[in-house]
Amino acid sequence: MPDSRNQLQDIARQLRVDSVRAAAAAGSGHPTSSMSAADLMAVLVGRHLHYDFDRPDHPGNDRFILSKGHASPLLYAAYKAAGAVTDEELLTFREQGSRLQGHPTPRALPWVEVATGSLGQGLPVGVGMALSGKRLDRIPFRVWVLCGDSELAEGSVWEAAEHAGYEHLDNLTAIVDVNRLGQRGPTRHEWQLSAYADRFRAFGWHVVEVDGHDVDAVDRACHEAASTVGQPTVILARTVKGRGVASVENREGLHGKPLPDADAAVEELGGVHDVRVEMRRPAAARALHAVRSGHLELPRHALGDAVATRTAYGQALAALGTARGDVVALDGEVGDSTRTEYFAKEHPDRFFECYIAEQQLVAAAVGLAARGWVPYASTFAAFLTRAHDFVRMAAVSGADINLVGSHAGVAIGEDGPSQMGLEDLALFRAVHGSTVLYPCDAHQTGQLVAAMAGLDGISYLRTSRGDSPVIYGPEEKFPVGGSKVLRSSDADRLTVVAAGVTVHEALAAAEALEREGIAVRVVDLYSVKPVDRDTLREAAEHTGCLMTVEDHREQGGLGDAVLDAFTDGRPVPRLVRLAVRTMPGSASPEEQLRAAGIDAESIAAAARLLVEQGVVR
Amino acid sequence: MPDSRNQLQDIARQLRVDSVRAAAAAGSGHPTSSMSAADLMAVLVGRHLHYDFDRPDHPGNDRFILSKGHASPLLYAAYKAAGAVTDEELLTFREQGSRLQGHPTPRALPWVEVATGSLGQGLPVGVGMALSGKRLDRIPFRVWVLCGDSELAEGSVWEAAEHAGYEHLDNLTAIVDVNRLGQRGPTRHEWQLSAYADRFRAFGWHVVEVDGHDVDAVDRACHEAASTVGQPTVILARTVKGRGVASVENREGLHGKPLPDADAAVEELGGVHDVRVEMRRPAAARALHAVRSGHLELPRHALGDAVATRTAYGQALAALGTARGDVVALDGEVGDSTRTEYFAKEHPDRFFECYIAEQQLVAAAVGLAARGWVPYASTFAAFLTRAHDFVRMAAVSGADINLVGSHAGVAIGEDGPSQMGLEDLALFRAVHGSTVLYPCDAHQTGQLVAAMAGLDGISYLRTSRGDSPVIYGPEEKFPVGGSKVLRSSDADRLTVVAAGVTVHEALAAAEALEREGIAVRVVDLYSVKPVDRDTLREAAEHTGCLMTVEDHREQGGLGDAVLDAFTDGRPVPRLVRLAVRTMPGSASPEEQLRAAGIDAESIAAAARLLVEQGVVR
Repeated sequence: MPDSRNQLQDIARQLRVDSVRAAAAAGSGHPTSSMSAADLMAVLVGRHLHYDFDRPDHPGNDRFILSKGHASPLLYAAYKAAGAVTDEELLTFREQGSRLQGHPTPRALPWVEVATGSLGQGLPVGVGMALSGKRLDRIPFRVWVLCGDSELAEGSVWEAAEHAGYEHLDNLTAIVDVNRLGQRGPTRHEWQLSAYADRFRAFGWHVVEVDGHDVDAVDRACHEAASTVGQPTVILARTVKGRGVASVENREGLHGKPLPDADAAVEELGGVHDVRVEMRRPAAARALHAVRSGHLELPRHALGDAVATRTAYGQALAALGTARGDVVALDGEVGDSTRTEYFAKEHPDRFFECYIAEQQLVAAAVGLAARGWVPYASTFAAFLTRAHDFVRMAAVSGADINLVGSHAGVAIGEDGPSQMGLEDLALFRAVHGSTVLYPCDAHQTGQLVAAMAGLDGISYLRTSRGDSPVIYGPEEKFPVGGSKVLRSSDADRLTVVAAGVTVHEALAAAEALEREGIAVRVVDLYSVKPVDRDTLREAAEHTGCLMTVEDHREQGGLGDAVLDAFTDGRPVPRLVRLAVRTMPGSASPEEQLRAAGIDAESIAAAARLLVEQGVVR
Repeated sequence: MPDSRNQLQDIARQLRVDSVRAAAAAGSGHPTSSMSAADLMAVLVGRHLHYDFDRPDHPGNDRFILSKGHASPLLYAAYKAAGAVTDEELLTFREQGSRLQGHPTPRALPWVEVATGSLGQGLPVGVGMALSGKRLDRIPFRVWVLCGDSELAEGSVWEAAEHAGYEHLDNLTAIVDVNRLGQRGPTRHEWQLSAYADRFRAFGWHVVEVDGHDVDAVDRACHEAASTVGQPTVILARTVKGRGVASVENREGLHGKPLPDADAAVEELGGVHDVRVEMRRPAAARALHAVRSGHLELPRHALGDAVATRTAYGQALAALGTARGDVVALDGEVGDSTRTEYFAKEHPDRFFECYIAEQQLVAAAVGLAARGWVPYASTFAAFLTRAHDFVRMAAVSGADINLVGSHAGVAIGEDGPSQMGLEDLALFRAVHGSTVLYPCDAHQTGQLVAAMAGLDGISYLRTSRGDSPVIYGPEEKFPVGGSKVLRSSDADRLTVVAAGVTVHEALAAAEALEREGIAVRVVDLYSVKPVDRDTLREAAEHTGCLMTVEDHREQGGLGDAVLDAFTDGRPVPRLVRLAVRTMPGSASPEEQLRAAGIDAESIAAAARLLVEQGVVR
């Protein structure tokens, strides 16, 4: 461990040199943003981070998040200094196939905890990790988050500040590289550290202000952070963008660009060195979340019982929490609506109240997942849109998280459009590698909730506010990627594809149509992504026409999902879409379904029209 | 104007009574959340709001936003007190067809400025209105925002606090109804007003703490707010949820429910009254934004010139700002990338720097639009996901705003997935009543930017980072809802539908295929929503197969958009989709297009395969 000022300065110099060289080799990147934070990074890796590069999954490792992800050259330079990557690999920065991407992601590198590059996300995710350390792992690792000053304008940073302050997360340290310059010019507060200090202090943080180029001062600040009890600490470091190369120091217009003359810059910085840093080792620690308990006992209902799928979710989640010690739940202060209150009651130690802060809600789930927990985060489906960017970035991270949105669709009734999830299927289907599930009864919900725990990536479950009848038995299986054909005959002239509340409408419509001599197939497409290609193709072949019925906007939902079975050039069946095309107002659930044209009568009327027009056989 | 304590208390009593009655009539709603704020509302409408109910568009009207939109009974009760709605209408609350919806929206009521119900949005939108008053209208109206305490957990509130404090918006007052109880229990800070006071003060606000049931104190606080210069003011009002009815006061478990015994409650509150409030009238004022200037001179380029569509956007926006005095621009601190810097340079008085706070960016646009301005708000397409809930609510409001996302798709190159907009088309297509445009060359971009100014609702334009050749002449027209057939012949065996960067790839592929004797039609589908049904149907009829090629996820984008022409039961052509199916890393733009399988060679290869397989004629 380097213990002299000179040694730390040598490391910082090398980090600058290597940042400049990496960006020069790539022909792009953010060297000046790396140079401002080089002394901070040198002190961190040289004296404070406890980390075993050979065992990135060591439970005692400190966590480090480069929230200002564009300063990736600095991170990779630090990896080189720690001996984790070679100089040769360093110079592959931003090349196709290189692990050293423009912005760091855990998909590429085992030492990266979470993908960054969308600003304002590192601290909220760090809060999730710190919560894990403090409340679940009970391991004294620290979480260090290196932030830029520009990103403090993001509200998500203040959701995190609130959460961390309130939860007394003294294992969390934010280091802010206050280099005064954002992408296109000065930040709001430039070098006025007191502006940031006042804000963090108000949110309950311990604040240390330092000259970010004085390695001794930074070292003392890190010690102060580590020894502060009962409060998270923020180190506000006054720095100079481009520090170390006179021609680029503190100059506008150089963000995200290699240095104009990299060779001269490297020379000015003292030339290429190969200082190796011996990092502090983590203390011995054992991960607790491997602990699992017994058999999963999902609740059982009688056929025909009226149970809301949100209630079935809450019950199943509580049961899953009993069966698996690694399942945790989070909520955005609507647990009485989403029904996570059932889990909270039975497993209070593994429940995280995130209040009305959906970005922090999802970020905490990502942080907990990074520590090996299996999180279920819930709020109204409508309000998950608030966390869209966090979901997107979680997919970039390859995070395994489960998100559950309640109060889907117009079926919620009187509360009106602000509370209706009508775009959530579109949002989650477009997320890379996601799974999207939409159950229609209690048993189906329970099975899918359990299945989600074993899925990779972002899994989304959509639940409904109102009661619906139990139509499946407790032993019925619902594989992800499957569907259920609820009615079929050789005489089917049309296939109605439904999910969630519209399954019950479709069944009622099919019964009415049968009485009129029109046979209709009904498919419960509970797995919206991936879809059950075989069943849809068979239905297309037999009936020639698919009518999708969904309590969602007509774009991006069920109507688009069925196409996933037909976009390889094969013949496509005729398609009819019933979906929510208007802006709803207040009305009862039944009136809403009727007004949107997705109730049983509307389905039957549309089917009759298709028969009359000769569109279906 | 009521000028005694007693008169104000009478009004407050009536607001409570009517809130209880409205919720009782509806059988749902939030009376207890209304009752806590009744005294605040009585003082506001009784003594401080300058408002002409007969002229809701009066430029001198104060703006009032009920950020805690669930307290809608209180708002409607106030409308009744002001004589704007009858008692009979009040009791239609939450009925189908009633203007008095569960959460207020301007689509239903002319006096509502903006839809609320998704918490944490009122203050950011209020900032937009206050900016308009201060910097554009230069009319001394005030903006009053009534917030709940729960919603202060939303980061968007702190984006707004930062923006308002930094801009010294002394025409903005937030009144926080600190009733201690959120939906499912106590808030983080309960009645600890100092916690909120510290936070707002740190962000540069003037803070007044009051007993929210002492009408004199509230009156003094409002006067203090109105007379505070150089700072926005927050009035932190300690209140009791359910105030006035002993059995529900300060009790958990009663959020969002009618009172158990409404008749007894009304009696306890003194019975039904019919107090009429004479409100203060707005000062005479004239709206400035009707001012328009001259002819629009869009930049002209030579065919073949290499111009990025983001650059064309910036140039067109600057030109539009010259032609129209009502056009304003906002950016999320990336104006050098989105190119709004061109507008900022030419029209600094109408440019709003929102720093890295995308929720505030979109909310400010909504607030400016509510004041009659024509806003264009820009950031990276990827980061507009951050504001998804604000976009959703803007649609509920029926707001006319233009959003422009740059750096779309994998084509940005080395920066990697965190910066790539790959889900934006899905996001914006699913927004009710939206328009989605994706130009491929500079002239097309310019025309579409100009057209957006005249569109209703949410309009989205997707721009690209890299240069692309100018392929259209400066006089070419690009109607919204149209498309361009760039190549066609009677021998076409396949139609390639592309937009943006993939148009150029499709043209190159078509040329290569032509040399092999495979004729291919190419459609530039620059209007992604609405789509050009006629052209797509004709292409389907002639060629039998549509191949969509998009720099976007395969869900919710171009591939789904073409289906909008075929979901009425008519025969559907064969479909093939080329889209981004993997998680990209860093690579050059060309390598990215190749790796995603959406470059010219991939298109040609897919077409050849379809020919070989006999899928196309």
